[in-house]
Amino acid sequence: MTLSLSDSFKTYSVSIIGASGYSGAELNRLLLHHPNVRLHELYAFSQAGKAVSELYPSLSCNKVYRKYGGEQDSDIYFFALPHGEALELVPSLLRAGKTVIDLSGDFRLKNTIEHEQFYKKKKSSEAVLSYGLPELFHEQIRQANSVSNPGCFATSIILGLAPLFLSDEGPVPVSSVNCTSVSGISGAGRSSTTELSFSEMSENVRAYKVGIHQHTPEIMQALGSSVTTPSFDFTFTPMIGSLVRGIYSILNIKLEKNVGVEKLKKIYKHFYSNAPFIRLRDSMTEVKHVAYTNYCDIHIAQVSGTGSLTIITTIDNLLKGAAGQAMQNMNIMLGLDETTGFFL
Amino acid sequence: MTLSLSDSFKTYSVSIIGASGYSGAELNRLLLHHPNVRLHELYAFSQAGKAVSELYPSLSCNKVYRKYGGEQDSDIYFFALPHGEALELVPSLLRAGKTVIDLSGDFRLKNTIEHEQFYKKKKSSEAVLSYGLPELFHEQIRQANSVSNPGCFATSIILGLAPLFLSDEGPVPVSSVNCTSVSGISGAGRSSTTELSFSEMSENVRAYKVGIHQHTPEIMQALGSSVTTPSFDFTFTPMIGSLVRGIYSILNIKLEKNVGVEKLKKIYKHFYSNAPFIRLRDSMTEVKHVAYTNYCDIHIAQVSGTGSLTIITTIDNLLKGAAGQAMQNMNIMLGLDETTGFFL
Amino acid sequence: MTLSLSDSFKTYSVSIIGASGYSGAELNRLLLHHPNVRLHELYAFSQAGKAVSELYPSLSCNKVYRKYGGEQDSDIYFFALPHGEALELVPSLLRAGKTVIDLSGDFRLKNTIEHEQFYKKKKSSEAVLSYGLPELFHEQIRQANSVSNPGCFATSIILGLAPLFLSDEGPVPVSSVNCTSVSGISGAGRSSTTELSFSEMSENVRAYKVGIHQHTPEIMQALGSSVTTPSFDFTFTPMIGSLVRGIYSILNIKLEKNVGVEKLKKIYKHFYSNAPFIRLRDSMTEVKHVAYTNYCDIHIAQVSGTGSLTIITTIDNLLKGAAGQAMQNMNIMLGLDETTGFFL
Amino acid sequence: MTLSLSDSFKTYSVSIIGASGYSGAELNRLLLHHPNVRLHELYAFSQAGKAVSELYPSLSCNKVYRKYGGEQDSDIYFFALPHGEALELVPSLLRAGKTVIDLSGDFRLKNTIEHEQFYKKKKSSEAVLSYGLPELFHEQIRQANSVSNPGCFATSIILGLAPLFLSDEGPVPVSSVNCTSVSGISGAGRSSTTELSFSEMSENVRAYKVGIHQHTPEIMQALGSSVTTPSFDFTFTPMIGSLVRGIYSILNIKLEKNVGVEKLKKIYKHFYSNAPFIRLRDSMTEVKHVAYTNYCDIHIAQVSGTGSLTIITTIDNLLKGAAGQAMQNMNIMLGLDETTGFFL
Repeated sequence: MTLSLSDSFKTYSVSIIGASGYSGAELNRLLLHHPNVRLHELYAFSQAGKAVSELYPSLSCNKVYRKYGGEQDSDIYFFALPHGEALELVPSLLRAGKTVIDLSGDFRLKNTIEHEQFYKKKKSSEAVLSYGLPELFHEQIRQANSVSNPGCFATSIILGLAPLFLSDEGPVPVSSVNCTSVSGISGAGRSSTTELSFSEMSENVRAYKVGIHQHTPEIMQALGSSVTTPSFDFTFTPMIGSLVRGIYSILNIKLEKNVGVEKLKKIYKHFYSNAPFIRLRDSMTEVKHVAYTNYCDIHIAQVSGTGSLTIITTIDNLLKGAAGQAMQNMNIMLGLDETTGFFL
Repeated sequence: MTLSLSDSFKTYSVSIIGASGYSGAELNRLLLHHPNVRLHELYAFSQAGKAVSELYPSLSCNKVYRKYGGEQDSDIYFFALPHGEALELVPSLLRAGKTVIDLSGDFRLKNTIEHEQFYKKKKSSEAVLSYGLPELFHEQIRQANSVSNPGCFATSIILGLAPLFLSDEGPVPVSSVNCTSVSGISGAGRSSTTELSFSEMSENVRAYKVGIHQHTPEIMQALGSSVTTPSFDFTFTPMIGSLVRGIYSILNIKLEKNVGVEKLKKIYKHFYSNAPFIRLRDSMTEVKHVAYTNYCDIHIAQVSGTGSLTIITTIDNLLKGAAGQAMQNMNIMLGLDETTGFFL
Repeated sequence: MTLSLSDSFKTYSVSIIGASGYSGAELNRLLLHHPNVRLHELYAFSQAGKAVSELYPSLSCNKVYRKYGGEQDSDIYFFALPHGEALELVPSLLRAGKTVIDLSGDFRLKNTIEHEQFYKKKKSSEAVLSYGLPELFHEQIRQANSVSNPGCFATSIILGLAPLFLSDEGPVPVSSVNCTSVSGISGAGRSSTTELSFSEMSENVRAYKVGIHQHTPEIMQALGSSVTTPSFDFTFTPMIGSLVRGIYSILNIKLEKNVGVEKLKKIYKHFYSNAPFIRLRDSMTEVKHVAYTNYCDIHIAQVSGTGSLTIITTIDNLLKGAAGQAMQNMNIMLGLDETTGFFL
Repeated sequence: MTLSLSDSFKTYSVSIIGASGYSGAELNRLLLHHPNVRLHELYAFSQAGKAVSELYPSLSCNKVYRKYGGEQDSDIYFFALPHGEALELVPSLLRAGKTVIDLSGDFRLKNTIEHEQFYKKKKSSEAVLSYGLPELFHEQIRQANSVSNPGCFATSIILGLAPLFLSDEGPVPVSSVNCTSVSGISGAGRSSTTELSFSEMSENVRAYKVGIHQHTPEIMQALGSSVTTPSFDFTFTPMIGSLVRGIYSILNIKLEKNVGVEKLKKIYKHFYSNAPFIRLRDSMTEVKHVAYTNYCDIHIAQVSGTGSLTIITTIDNLLKGAAGQAMQNMNIMLGLDETTGFFL
């Protein structure tokens, strides 16, 4: 979507489909305060008919969730549905010329076989959405009418690795990457399983989907590789811990040859020179530093003399890992400043 | 049940009906290590067929939950079922001469009208169980074959107030009591409601059942009064906070006349002189001091010159507020030392 | 300070004295995004010389804390120092015609004897600052050049009680109020005592300063009474729990005569009809509903037929209980809309 | 120490030097209930003169911490001092024929250069203590008079790797190991730094000492390798999270050739066939499963077809990672059953 300068004064009608989950509610919160947005409808399924103030009193939003019945009266549609549910709904909105940003995994993977293997669901739609990681694909997003918003783990991991793989000065050859990430529990959505109850998860850590998490192919794809024919050795172990928001990723990397810390810092600095939400930090980062913000903090924690390095990244899973990045994508698509509407 | 000294070497067969909830699991843990107990069967309903090691790996117990079909082959039966479910099952075990300890609210209230008002359930059984608060009713428990174990809030509140109401040197006339308690979330059981998920309850406080909690009539009854014809003004506000275990009760009391702090301490000390699990503390108590123990800490926090005082009590809701107290009751009924089988 | 309409486009130079504590950092965060503020200097004492990005990376603020040496080059000064330290510094800024908002307890109590009794410090200054609780004293604040920002507990308790005491339709006579509040641990400041370490405070509750908390005289004063000659019986028990932000206050009130729930709701609704940060809620409120916002949620939880009622209020202690209310006061003093600069 | 069967009825006098920290307090708790122990003196430094009941009311221990002045009147001495402080005190107790178990890092590393590099302290003593990891060195511990208790991270990581390196059927050749561990905050001791306050660490994750943690050489040494001349590629990234107790270790391993999951399980099962505190688990383990126990849970989470595997281990850092393992070592040294005195 290419827009003129005057668009920064325009106001767009925006609706959210799947507004009652945590990502949807976070979008709701952000969009209520965006200067170019008029929040139109909040669609939900099981919660349809309930007031926002009942589920999320903190939002001070006086709308009521409605059931989505195919309406096409907004300019922009955000989808924040569980995986598999946007596939059927997105195409007709695209045909109607609407701007669509999908926060699910439905359109992230280009390879249908990988999609079906990792999501365990048929990929019914042929629609191709632009991959919405602005720090890597800014120009494509700017020209796109529809964007598939990256996964939360994927965002934190890709942003920590991309300068090595995609630097325009030539990549730094990587032989293996070992990722271990701790996620806040809100990543599992507004759920009610015993496993995620306070009594079970307080003062706890638990790994899950070891080696089979659906963000694995997404990470490989964004780095120009693939799980099917990997160009480097990649493992990913996700965990949940006793926190609501945040992802903390430890990336242990082996390079094919030794690269000094100053050279690495230069590559990262150059790669992210135009990225307002990336903070390259010289001291240790922590979840607390990014919670409730759209920042991704990146810290090169250790560089050995033998080509192994440890990079640590952290994001707020509901913001840079979901709703915040989705709004950042919207800003880019509308020709607005990327940071419009973000408070902190 | 009156037993001879030699009983301290005897071993009893014990089964738990409702073993898969948090109170049941805590009983399971305690009874596995009790020197006079041979844990026989663990009965559960929805979880029947599952291994204990699947639900509670921490217990290192290799039993499997079974469905209860009326078996009467143990000496002692603990009931840890949701309210309303023990009413039908207890009488036949009593008729068979079994020792029964019920952790639910089914047999706590003597007044059927109050029971039905506060539990919103018909009280179908006429069985009368002894009220199992050992610090007040030690002798009755010792002679009983069946005990109704007190509620967790009730335990913490009654123990803080009893010396004023039930001192054998004559009660201290009380005009009003205002209780505010914070409970750990395990008090709600092994549940899976959204309201009790980690994402909702981390860093949160929430009151509930204000003025209508079912422990209110139980407290009044134990103090020799009743909600129907109260002899003093009583209010109770329960809250849950961001902790798994523990109850912290603030008791604001107005006496009919001023009583000095030294006199009050003397009354409390005398009242609990034979109570091994009561600790009267001179400095501030906190949940951390009693978690994972069967103690009830009591601290007289403030005594004004005008007859108002603040007493603070704290217990572990799963131990002194449930499974621990139940085992303490069993010990007393079996003629064992009250503290047998408690580690810390 | 009376300002013309054009002032809503003006920008003011603002400095914070005591910027490195939690309230100061929260002010820092808020003021960075306020449309009428140019953040000038951040003064600190022990942290002077350090970068904000070192202590609070989340703020994305590139300033350095400086030692305050009597500078008077800003229009507005916020004080967020420990109690006792603003007393000496405020008067000369007032003489220089500066706008001052003090977040400490130094100028809250009009009665010097009460001040010295509860703060255990000499009250060295005679300066009189307006009491900055906007929902009660909006007009006085609007005309003031200096404001003493209320205490966090005091804010949550006064807002829950004020309609009964200060309704312009005539007060509802109150015979006693019993307050129990749970506070987040950030209320103790950016401290490093063992008692407030994670290992001690996780899954814990602890009362403190029972009956002697310094917000007690402040509450009485705001309600038109005093601790010296109280017109009703008042007790206050503060606690800390396992949460960083938030205050949850249970107010148990005895009225001199029975007042129905509908009448009470009407009184509260009328009293707060012009208060954008007060939300009267029909269902139970919780800390989660107000965390990271400047709202005070008030819920009338229970009204008995005998004149006793339970009111529950909740605020974010760092926002409505400190920095947020301070910025709200600044907005009013500058003639701006009260909600200017608040995001959520 | 070789003892006859009758020793299981003997009682030993035991003192703790450094009893007021978290490991010391946990030892205090355990030893109070050990059937063969009479707890003699609790020595502390900065806390000397204070009652145990003041620092740890939960323990119900009526002793007072004393300053250690060289006393040698107990049979067994546990040291739970900060690193560097046992070095001077242990030798004279050993000369006096006392049994010594040191929980610090002072005697863990055989290589003095590695010790001084990683602990940043001179290694002043030549005393050699047996390395007290019972699952690997049971026989050596049984015959020893003095034991150096392993580090907490080291315990969790060595136990997860040892069967590959030390299987008596011949080791499984390993090319690289990548460890990422999350620790509870009690691992940092009873401290009062701002970085470990509740307000900073609630809902947080933070890595530290990346690549330079002092448990690295200890792990290599126990596996028959060394950091100086490593036989495989090893990296270790420690983190702390929002929990008090527990260590959760993710071990990503590359084997030199592919080994099937059944073969691996068999190796682990055989290796730990006599280890009562090791639980090989078929389903995912979590910190909650081992908290407050002396167990180490090990789960082979993923085995690829290309020789890479993920093993997850978890322990309670204060028990199997410190005080529990120390008592287990004492049991072995005294010829008692390894599990004596453990409740759960």
